[in-house]
Amino acid sequence: MSPVAPSLPSAKVIHVDTRGAVILSEESPETRDSRGIYFPNHIEPVSHIAVDIGGSLAKVVYFTRSPEPPSSPSIAATHGSTSPSNLSTPRSLSPADNGATVSPPTSPPSSSVKHNGALTPLVLEPHANGNGLSGLHDDLLRDSLIRRTAQHFPGGSLNFERFETDNIHECVEFIQSLIERSAQVNHVSIEEMRKGVKIMATGGGAHKFYELFRDTLHVEVRREDEMECLIEGLKFITLIPDEVYYFSDEFIHSVSNPSHTPATCSVLGSKAALPATGANGVLERPSPDPPKFGVIFESHPKPQFPCLLVNIGSGVSIIKVDEDGKFERVSGTSLGGGTLWGLLSLLTPATTFDEMLAFSDEGDNATVDMLVGDIYGQDYSRLGLKSTMIASSFGKVFKKGGKKGTFSPEDISRSLLYAVSNNIGQIAYMNAEKYNLDRIYFGGCFIRGHAATITTLSYAIRFWSKGTKRAVFLRHEGFLGSIGAWIKNIDSAAE
Amino acid sequence: MSPVAPSLPSAKVIHVDTRGAVILSEESPETRDSRGIYFPNHIEPVSHIAVDIGGSLAKVVYFTRSPEPPSSPSIAATHGSTSPSNLSTPRSLSPADNGATVSPPTSPPSSSVKHNGALTPLVLEPHANGNGLSGLHDDLLRDSLIRRTAQHFPGGSLNFERFETDNIHECVEFIQSLIERSAQVNHVSIEEMRKGVKIMATGGGAHKFYELFRDTLHVEVRREDEMECLIEGLKFITLIPDEVYYFSDEFIHSVSNPSHTPATCSVLGSKAALPATGANGVLERPSPDPPKFGVIFESHPKPQFPCLLVNIGSGVSIIKVDEDGKFERVSGTSLGGGTLWGLLSLLTPATTFDEMLAFSDEGDNATVDMLVGDIYGQDYSRLGLKSTMIASSFGKVFKKGGKKGTFSPEDISRSLLYAVSNNIGQIAYMNAEKYNLDRIYFGGCFIRGHAATITTLSYAIRFWSKGTKRAVFLRHEGFLGSIGAWIKNIDSAAE
Repeated sequence: MSPVAPSLPSAKVIHVDTRGAVILSEESPETRDSRGIYFPNHIEPVSHIAVDIGGSLAKVVYFTRSPEPPSSPSIAATHGSTSPSNLSTPRSLSPADNGATVSPPTSPPSSSVKHNGALTPLVLEPHANGNGLSGLHDDLLRDSLIRRTAQHFPGGSLNFERFETDNIHECVEFIQSLIERSAQVNHVSIEEMRKGVKIMATGGGAHKFYELFRDTLHVEVRREDEMECLIEGLKFITLIPDEVYYFSDEFIHSVSNPSHTPATCSVLGSKAALPATGANGVLERPSPDPPKFGVIFESHPKPQFPCLLVNIGSGVSIIKVDEDGKFERVSGTSLGGGTLWGLLSLLTPATTFDEMLAFSDEGDNATVDMLVGDIYGQDYSRLGLKSTMIASSFGKVFKKGGKKGTFSPEDISRSLLYAVSNNIGQIAYMNAEKYNLDRIYFGGCFIRGHAATITTLSYAIRFWSKGTKRAVFLRHEGFLGSIGAWIKNIDSAAE
Repeated sequence: MSPVAPSLPSAKVIHVDTRGAVILSEESPETRDSRGIYFPNHIEPVSHIAVDIGGSLAKVVYFTRSPEPPSSPSIAATHGSTSPSNLSTPRSLSPADNGATVSPPTSPPSSSVKHNGALTPLVLEPHANGNGLSGLHDDLLRDSLIRRTAQHFPGGSLNFERFETDNIHECVEFIQSLIERSAQVNHVSIEEMRKGVKIMATGGGAHKFYELFRDTLHVEVRREDEMECLIEGLKFITLIPDEVYYFSDEFIHSVSNPSHTPATCSVLGSKAALPATGANGVLERPSPDPPKFGVIFESHPKPQFPCLLVNIGSGVSIIKVDEDGKFERVSGTSLGGGTLWGLLSLLTPATTFDEMLAFSDEGDNATVDMLVGDIYGQDYSRLGLKSTMIASSFGKVFKKGGKKGTFSPEDISRSLLYAVSNNIGQIAYMNAEKYNLDRIYFGGCFIRGHAATITTLSYAIRFWSKGTKRAVFLRHEGFLGSIGAWIKNIDSAAE
């Protein structure tokens, strides 16, 4: 495989050398969607820290130099977390199962932090405002630096971090210490280091927190349009091998017809016990228990436009992207991740989103959802509605006389996850149909590589489109905006 | 006004004489959508009791003879409730404000029950199976009956009742006692009376509870297809003057431009203090506080097809109706009334749906919903997103560290009502657009004439369609299926 970046039909050249890029195979519940990406051939001329501040989460992306792939890559992107939790096993997608070449192999986590790279200070740049090597404290250090940086050595990792917007100061502190550490590693003063760093801010919070970032970090802060960044991020990330994945029709077929078992697919562990039982070639409708599905990772990136991008954060934005990369936000819904998290935090004892997802994995929505069979006592076959189909989400909960039933957090979580995911899938499909788009990318922090979410979205698209459209997912689903902001600055720096 | 039934482009003739039909002006919180309709010219050949059994509610429709309009009409349709509650005042739609001719005027409720009419027993029918006047107990009674029924006297009321499906036995008992009382009033035996009564059952429960109705009531029970009945019901009910209502564009314009105030509109009392402030002709987007809107009642019924029918019960069915009356269920969503009722019964102390609606009238969704302004600190004007627009329903609820905030039942109710209504409006619009339909009827027990629901749905349709499509509502919104079942039997009896 020679993963040369394919030429995309875009007016803008992407100035990151993606040849040989690999997604690092670190694994922890916190890094499902934030594994580092190693670029052996990329040279970053200026240090950019991109931050995409949404309603609930702030996502940070930055590049650190290191000529060799990090030996302990999981550290770089996990806030120093050292325990690879088995929480992630049933829910997250492992590329290792897939037969694709992913290197380096996972190595045992160490407890040191961020020793694999540093930001590039502007002072090391030959063309940096003419003050190339000024500001260094002594000749020895200067000589050492000249030796080390006489040539740009390529290679380094793109790193991904997530913070809660409510605790934006943590995000600011993280960037602060990243800049300080980089100054130390590069033996330059903090003032010099700051001159070589730019913050590219996007998302709604780029406006709200602009002064906070500028005045605390003392670095240049630039604001970028949110939708533009999402599309730039999508354009770039889809160049990375094994970034894009989807449920294969072939695999679905083989699940329905167990005599064929393709070797290139991994099976997601799902609570469902039974595969789809429809006749050959008949597409199954969404069901409360999606069959075990397999995912396929796209190891040879393909041009991705035209497409629909559905970005699911607190709310949902739906963006149509034309073949030439022109885009328009055509729709959206307020029923997004914030709705699921908010309602489940009221309805269950869960205190984190991962706990909510863990609940939903154990739940049975049929105790709270009114199914077609509950109303009809059977299928409503004249309309093709199967008895297991959800007729009314939470339809079994309200009882006459206000008798408050008891429902388990697990069942409630599963029901609400289905409700929100199905609804997004349906609205996404209708927009894809309207604009005649066959590929529907789902991005945003809502997804988190969670099997039930992904199968529900995939199912919804398959059901409504009668199999003509495909739901496509991304490993770095939550970082499209921040990747886009990072890329945009590289573009403008290179111009 | 001469309310002759307009000829509809339908293959099926409707055998109810709707000339002079009036909606009775009874008013109580329970009868928002179940006022009787008086038909001065209709003669019912056979007694039909139609019942539409949904996931949450069973809706009953039946006709009772009475040559004069009932003097105390509110009794016939309120389960004997005698207190006209002021609960309904801010929420329900009063036709009296509208200038339309509605008679008879409201009279004080009395405590007697169902004395205004009775079912027609088959024995009074000349063509009834040849056993015309058999089964009567004495000659005196027979003579009296012959005098009374020598000619079919026209006139009577269509009555509407609602029961919870969980308590279907109450519905059965109600029908049982209606049959018994009608036998008594008509001086025929219960056996004879039963021969003259047919139950037309539709909805999912028509299958599930078929044996229960047949074996308890000892009358013929016929099952009718749910979607067919909905469309028949829509076809019929839209012939009734002042049944159909909608928000007038003219009124909306006048709200935005206070110098014009059309006299024919009533103003819905809504929590919103401010009217839409957009520039002339610019359509306002949905907002958490819809402006005070006026509704217009259609006093001159018009042909209604083609159209989209969105029936919101526990779940939602979306049905496309062609100009010739052909129909297809094209979409639906599981996020319907059952979702709102179910979640609010878990999240608030409300024990009835009316309590939930009362809560929502007092709430402020901005405490739980994440608005565009919460994320951006301002409008996202590049996308035309106003700062007051809801970006994420319940998006403010989930907090880091699992700190469970306290949110009032009022605010939660309002937020969820908006979320569900907006979502249905959006999906309805997309289907209307897909099938190029301009009139979107909203039916089903979800609506209950509730101002916030109606304004939200109207707003959503206006927003998404840029004012090209119209949300249309019905007073008897919840009874389309049962009215359709009633009509279908009249058709078949007349054939």
